[in-house]
Amino acid sequence: MLKTVDWQKNQVVIIDQTKLPEKLSFLKLKNYKQILKAIKMMQVRGAPALGVTAALGVVLGALAIKKKETAAFTKELARICRYLKSARPTAVNLFWGIDRILNFVKKNQKLSLAELKILLLKEARQIIEADTEANLAIGRWGQQLIGKGARVLTHCNAGSLATVAYGTALGVIRAARKKIKMVYADETRPRLQGGKLTAWELMREKIPVTVICDNMAGMLMKQGAIDLVVVGADRIAANGDTANKIGTYSLAVLAKHHKIPFYVAAPVSTIDFKIKNGSQIPIEQRDFKEVTHLEGRRILAPKVKVINPAFDLTPHFLITNIITEKGIFKPIDLAKLKPKNA
Amino acid sequence: MLKTVDWQKNQVVIIDQTKLPEKLSFLKLKNYKQILKAIKMMQVRGAPALGVTAALGVVLGALAIKKKETAAFTKELARICRYLKSARPTAVNLFWGIDRILNFVKKNQKLSLAELKILLLKEARQIIEADTEANLAIGRWGQQLIGKGARVLTHCNAGSLATVAYGTALGVIRAARKKIKMVYADETRPRLQGGKLTAWELMREKIPVTVICDNMAGMLMKQGAIDLVVVGADRIAANGDTANKIGTYSLAVLAKHHKIPFYVAAPVSTIDFKIKNGSQIPIEQRDFKEVTHLEGRRILAPKVKVINPAFDLTPHFLITNIITEKGIFKPIDLAKLKPKNA
Repeated sequence: MLKTVDWQKNQVVIIDQTKLPEKLSFLKLKNYKQILKAIKMMQVRGAPALGVTAALGVVLGALAIKKKETAAFTKELARICRYLKSARPTAVNLFWGIDRILNFVKKNQKLSLAELKILLLKEARQIIEADTEANLAIGRWGQQLIGKGARVLTHCNAGSLATVAYGTALGVIRAARKKIKMVYADETRPRLQGGKLTAWELMREKIPVTVICDNMAGMLMKQGAIDLVVVGADRIAANGDTANKIGTYSLAVLAKHHKIPFYVAAPVSTIDFKIKNGSQIPIEQRDFKEVTHLEGRRILAPKVKVINPAFDLTPHFLITNIITEKGIFKPIDLAKLKPKNA
Repeated sequence: MLKTVDWQKNQVVIIDQTKLPEKLSFLKLKNYKQILKAIKMMQVRGAPALGVTAALGVVLGALAIKKKETAAFTKELARICRYLKSARPTAVNLFWGIDRILNFVKKNQKLSLAELKILLLKEARQIIEADTEANLAIGRWGQQLIGKGARVLTHCNAGSLATVAYGTALGVIRAARKKIKMVYADETRPRLQGGKLTAWELMREKIPVTVICDNMAGMLMKQGAIDLVVVGADRIAANGDTANKIGTYSLAVLAKHHKIPFYVAAPVSTIDFKIKNGSQIPIEQRDFKEVTHLEGRRILAPKVKVINPAFDLTPHFLITNIITEKGIFKPIDLAKLKPKNA
């Protein structure tokens, strides 16, 4: 299975997503600074993939710390974690991944640093495997919601490229592939992850896909051409409010108007039980050039003012179900998933 | 005043909109075949501009007919009209403009062809002036609907570039300019008329404008950042159902969900009293390359399937008012505008 993020010979190997769909190429990241750069440049993106990559970045950082004493080691590791947390603000998986390693180190602080480093290597592999397993479980649960001959709309890329492998929303689609007549993929301006990444992934697997401009979704729903919507998530608040790629909210309103089910597929690590509702989720504002330019060339009127929020918020009452690796939940029932120590 | 379409020295002079916003350049069209080509290539676009350009194309054609007898002249003119009607299917103004000249010829068939050709020249000038006057009237009516400090969302380009001058939706905005705090212009995929043409027009006149990706409109509405939506129209059925640029329907649903007024601004020539409802409006399907490529370069995954409907239908019950040169109407009251001979 093609892995979007992997650990090979003490390096983090990622697919460079900025080169797709033209070219499938891999980047070998040797230290945590290269991890930060790859995340910032969106060579790796997608909430679960960010969680795993950031965690592996902390492991890379930890293995390279020269300090011999646990206190000095821990202090340095905390600094690396703060540094990596500055990469992107919205996807909570990034913080989850970093904290997972940090907590692992705290739990094992009685070990020698040499022993700890060996365990960290095992933990890195475990994180990678766990992500794929979570996606496979999301797919198994989610496919139950998909009827025969379904026409499915998705937005952005919540596929294998947004995770280690298999995907969240596209994991559901993969698991249900025999029942799916057509996947409509929003192209997803400004960066066109739907038109580039989702289209590339599905075509590789011969799952039928049609790319549409973001503004065509309403028309298709009105024509009865969409049976359900499934998207990923960058952060889900305790009440089910969901931050996801800009445009998700509009789709949820359109789905409600047309009485079409609207599903969010995401691992439990995307749920931020610490915040009550979506208003507390920070929304990343990205470079205006992503809107005004495409591949280095200006496409809009010179000097025109634009905005570029990378995400929007969909309130829980517009979401039919949230599909996790632990099962299918109504947004208001997410509390059942809350870990006891959270 | 800059004219998008004009009649100069027995030529039709248009702004080449495919060159904007980079360059303001003009095309001199010498015969009706050049008119057809310019319309097909979208060097001139926008329903009212298409109506005027097509009418002027018929006049160009008529003036060049060598036949000396009225019957032969009329037959040839009818052929030219059929040819020009094949240019684009959705905007009814195109047919209206052509039929206007055809009817004018029929009404004056007792004149000598020499006399008729002189009158046709006057008629051409009259059509150009009438379009600008209609837009000014639309602006006067429409500005009454705009409150102080308004934040207005528009889609595609319904500006001076979609008409002879002043514009329909942007005519309303121009007339209300002192009351307007911000115009949000959807960039309008696939051809980006909002991000290119609307932005260019409004910046030229120092009306504050922010371009957004089409998928950002819902988020802005939810944040309370949009007070009203105003768009143009390509064809309005007798019951008020409106065909306009793809994406208009989604905006209308979003506006309804957020209880934001949704206005259509269009001259009476955009209303097709012959059809009862929107289901009878043919929707143009355009070249897939408009979606997969931008300025000649592929932007989506190679070989991916796409769709490219140029327009969608907004049902009358989602439209608050239709603003015409004859006044402001509820969609169901459009019948009041029906000419007695229609």
